[in-house]
Amino acid sequence: MLLNCDLGESFGAWKMGLDEQAMAVIDCANIACGFHAGDPTVIAKTLKLAKQYRVMIGAHPSYPDLQGFGRRSMKMSAQELTDTLHYQIAALDGMAQCQGLTLAYVKPHGALYNDMMADESLLNIVIQAIARYPKELKLMVLATARQNEHKALAEQLGVTLMFEAFADRLYTDEGMLTPRSQANAVHDKTALMAQVRQLATQGCVTTESGKQLALTADTLCVHGDNEASLAQINEISILLT
Amino acid sequence: MLLNCDLGESFGAWKMGLDEQAMAVIDCANIACGFHAGDPTVIAKTLKLAKQYRVMIGAHPSYPDLQGFGRRSMKMSAQELTDTLHYQIAALDGMAQCQGLTLAYVKPHGALYNDMMADESLLNIVIQAIARYPKELKLMVLATARQNEHKALAEQLGVTLMFEAFADRLYTDEGMLTPRSQANAVHDKTALMAQVRQLATQGCVTTESGKQLALTADTLCVHGDNEASLAQINEISILLT
Amino acid sequence: MLLNCDLGESFGAWKMGLDEQAMAVIDCANIACGFHAGDPTVIAKTLKLAKQYRVMIGAHPSYPDLQGFGRRSMKMSAQELTDTLHYQIAALDGMAQCQGLTLAYVKPHGALYNDMMADESLLNIVIQAIARYPKELKLMVLATARQNEHKALAEQLGVTLMFEAFADRLYTDEGMLTPRSQANAVHDKTALMAQVRQLATQGCVTTESGKQLALTADTLCVHGDNEASLAQINEISILLT
Amino acid sequence: MLLNCDLGESFGAWKMGLDEQAMAVIDCANIACGFHAGDPTVIAKTLKLAKQYRVMIGAHPSYPDLQGFGRRSMKMSAQELTDTLHYQIAALDGMAQCQGLTLAYVKPHGALYNDMMADESLLNIVIQAIARYPKELKLMVLATARQNEHKALAEQLGVTLMFEAFADRLYTDEGMLTPRSQANAVHDKTALMAQVRQLATQGCVTTESGKQLALTADTLCVHGDNEASLAQINEISILLT
Repeated sequence: MLLNCDLGESFGAWKMGLDEQAMAVIDCANIACGFHAGDPTVIAKTLKLAKQYRVMIGAHPSYPDLQGFGRRSMKMSAQELTDTLHYQIAALDGMAQCQGLTLAYVKPHGALYNDMMADESLLNIVIQAIARYPKELKLMVLATARQNEHKALAEQLGVTLMFEAFADRLYTDEGMLTPRSQANAVHDKTALMAQVRQLATQGCVTTESGKQLALTADTLCVHGDNEASLAQINEISILLT
Repeated sequence: MLLNCDLGESFGAWKMGLDEQAMAVIDCANIACGFHAGDPTVIAKTLKLAKQYRVMIGAHPSYPDLQGFGRRSMKMSAQELTDTLHYQIAALDGMAQCQGLTLAYVKPHGALYNDMMADESLLNIVIQAIARYPKELKLMVLATARQNEHKALAEQLGVTLMFEAFADRLYTDEGMLTPRSQANAVHDKTALMAQVRQLATQGCVTTESGKQLALTADTLCVHGDNEASLAQINEISILLT
Repeated sequence: MLLNCDLGESFGAWKMGLDEQAMAVIDCANIACGFHAGDPTVIAKTLKLAKQYRVMIGAHPSYPDLQGFGRRSMKMSAQELTDTLHYQIAALDGMAQCQGLTLAYVKPHGALYNDMMADESLLNIVIQAIARYPKELKLMVLATARQNEHKALAEQLGVTLMFEAFADRLYTDEGMLTPRSQANAVHDKTALMAQVRQLATQGCVTTESGKQLALTADTLCVHGDNEASLAQINEISILLT
Repeated sequence: MLLNCDLGESFGAWKMGLDEQAMAVIDCANIACGFHAGDPTVIAKTLKLAKQYRVMIGAHPSYPDLQGFGRRSMKMSAQELTDTLHYQIAALDGMAQCQGLTLAYVKPHGALYNDMMADESLLNIVIQAIARYPKELKLMVLATARQNEHKALAEQLGVTLMFEAFADRLYTDEGMLTPRSQANAVHDKTALMAQVRQLATQGCVTTESGKQLALTADTLCVHGDNEASLAQINEISILLT
C-alpha cells in the first residue's frame, strides 16, 4: 500500500504541517489547490519538495472555504462543482508542469470527500469532472463495502479509482469512517498498528460491530502534522516492508 | 490589427460586460482568471463562447484583489508574482483544454499591466514567468516608444510579444497612456476613429505634445461593456477591413 | 405594512440593484454586510442613501460566501454562526453610527434565512446571537403558520420579531414559500397584487392547496433590481395607502 | 511604558502566536480585524482572553490582504481606506461590546502602518477616519523625530495619539525603523535591553549614526510569537518595574 498524505496546507504567513519531513517518507502527496489551503507560492514550494523526494503528486481540491478549511459542507450545483474542480485541478496541473512534474491523481478534500462518499450523485459529478479533464487522472476515494460498485461506475466513465484506507479510524459495517464525534472513532496506537497489519496481510478491517469487512486498499492515508505523526508514518513504513 | 477585448469579468451573481455580443466581433479574448474577476463557472462559460465564435484566447491574470478589480497596485515579491501568474495561467490553460481549446497568450490586467509597463524589473519578472511556463505563450504588452527594446528583451528569454495599441486614449511622447485623471486622456469618437486610421495606415499616433510617434501594433484594445462600446467595435472593424 | 428591500448588494466594480431609486420608495433597507455582497465603500454609500431618504436600516448578514452570493447552505457550528453574525452586525452598526444612524433590526440573508426558517435549532442560534448583541435589535423572519411559536420563543430571549410576508411567492400550507423550482412558485402581477390586498385587508394568503392561511405581517419584502420591480413597489405602495 | 502586542492573528484552522500566554503579561492587545488575520471566531476568543486578563484592547486594521498578511502596500483611495478602517474598527468595537469590553484605541497594521508613517497624507486620512468614528478612540503611531508635529496634527482633529517605541529595532536619525533588509536592523538581546533602559530612563534611543534621539514613548511594542519572545516580554517587564 502506498502512503498518501495531505500537504501544502500552509497559507500566506500561516504554516501548517511538517511538509519537508513528511515528503521524505510518503509516496503520494495530496496538494491543496488554494480553495481550502495553499496559495500560489505554497503550491510552488510543495511541488518543489515533491520533485526533490520523487513523490507522486495529486490535486487536493475542496469546496471554496478558506476560513472553514474546506470542512463545512456547501450546497453547490453540479455545474459549480464541476467548474470548481476543473479550476483547482488545472491550476495544480499547470504549476506541476512548470517544474517538470506530472499530476497523477485527484483526491477531494474534507467535507467534499465526505459528502462524495455519502452521496452517490455527488460522487458521479466528481467522476465525470475527472473524466472530462483533458489528461488521464486517477481519483482517490475511500475503500468501502461498496468499492466494487464504485469501481464499475468509474470504469464506465473511463476513470481509474485509487482506493484508500485509514489506519487510525474505526469503520462502520458499511466501510465508512465512524464520525469523530463518536468516542471510539480514532484508534490509539496499538489499534492503529493492528489495523494496518490487518489491512496489509488480510485485506480487511474489524468494524465497530466486530464484523470483519474486506477492503482492498491501494493506499493508506497518513498525517504529517507534527513529530508524533511523522514517527507514526515511520512505524507504518517499517511494518509494511 | 487584431481586436482584443477583456471578457469573463463577471463574478458569482454579478454580471459585467456583454460577453456574447462582444465575442462575435473580436479576434482575441483576454479572460479573467479569478483573481480580479471571473470564477470557475464564469471562466467555463466564457471559454464556451470563445469556442463558439472561434476567438483566440488569452489569460488575463491580475494582482489578487477582487474588491479592487485588480486596479490597485500591490507590492508583491518576484517569487509571489511569478507563482501568482503561473497559478492563474495554469487554471485558465487547463480549463481551456477541458473544452478542446488552446491558450495562446497572456495579457496582465489593470494595475499589474500598468506597473509592468512603468517598471522594467517587473516586466522582466512577467516575461520570465511566461518563459518558464511549459507551453509557448505570447505576452501582450503596450506598444510604446521602447517597443523594440522590449521585443529584444523578450526574445532573449524566448518569449514573443504581441504589441497592443489603444484607440481611445491619448499617448505621451514616450508612448505611454496619459493618466485618466488628465482632462484629455480619453478621446471622443472622432479622435478615436482618427487614431485607429492613423495606426492602421501610417503606423503612428499623435502624442499629447503633437508629435508623431511610430508604433507597430499587432492588436487594438476594444471594450465590450455596453451597447455603445459594441457599436464602436463594429465601426472600428469596418474601418480596418 | 412596511416595505423592506435588500440593498447595498454591489461589490467592488460590480453594480447590482437600483439602490437610490429603491431607497426613495421603501421603509426598511436590509443592507448587505460584506459576506455575500457589499464592501466597506458600498456600505458607506448605502447608509448615506438611507440617511438621505430617512429609511430604517437593518443588517443583512449571510453565510461567508461571496462567490455564491450567500445562496448556498453551509454547515457552520453554533459558535461560528454566532460570531459571524456578531461580526457582520457590528460592522454595519458602527458604520451606521459613523453617519449618525441607528441600526434597527437584523434580517438574515439567502440560504441562512431559508435554513433558519426550516430548522428551529438554527433559528434559536440566530435569536440568541441577537439577544446577546449589546443593543436592542429586532429580528426579521418569515411570517408562517408557526409565527406565534416563533414570537414566544424570541420573547423568552428578549428579542422582538418583525414578521415579513412575500407578495410575489406562493405559500405552502405551513406558510413557507414554495421552492422556486416549482412551476407556480412565483406569482404573476395579478396574483401578486391580489396577495398584497389579501394580506393587507384580511391578514391571510391563499396557499398552494387553496387553503386560507392567516398571517400577520409587519412588513412586505419588495425588490429594487430593475425598473420593473421599482414600478411594482410603486403599485404596492398605492394599494397599501 | 505600557506593553502592546499584536494578537488574534490566527485564521480558521491556522494558529499563530501564543495568545493566552502573551495576554497574561501585556497591557494592550492589538487585535486583528479579519482583513489580514483573524476571523469572527478568532476575534471572539481573543476578546475573551483580553477580558480575562483585563488587557486594554485596540483594533488592528489592515489593508485587505489575507494572503499577504497585510504586509504588501496597496494603493487605495482616501475613500476606500476610510471606509475600510471604519468597517474593521466597527466590527471589533461591536464584538468587544458583546463581551462587555470597551475598545480603546486603533493601531494600523503592517504595510498600512509603515505607509502611514512614511506619507503624511495617508496619516491624515487615518487620523480623520478615527476622528469621524462615533466613539473616542486613540491612535497608536510610531514615536519619531516628528512626534510633536504628529501630536499637533491629531489634536487639531480631536484625536489623541499613543506613541510607541520598538525595543528590538535600530532607528534612523529621523526616528524611523531601519528596514529589516539592513544587516543591523534587528537588535540582539543585549542591545534590545539597553534600548529599553535608555527609552525608560533617558527618553531617547541611539540611532544608526550614533546620535541620541529624544523619543517620548507611551508604549513599547512586544511580540508573543513563541516562547523566546514571551521570555523577552518578562525580562522587559522586570526592567520596567
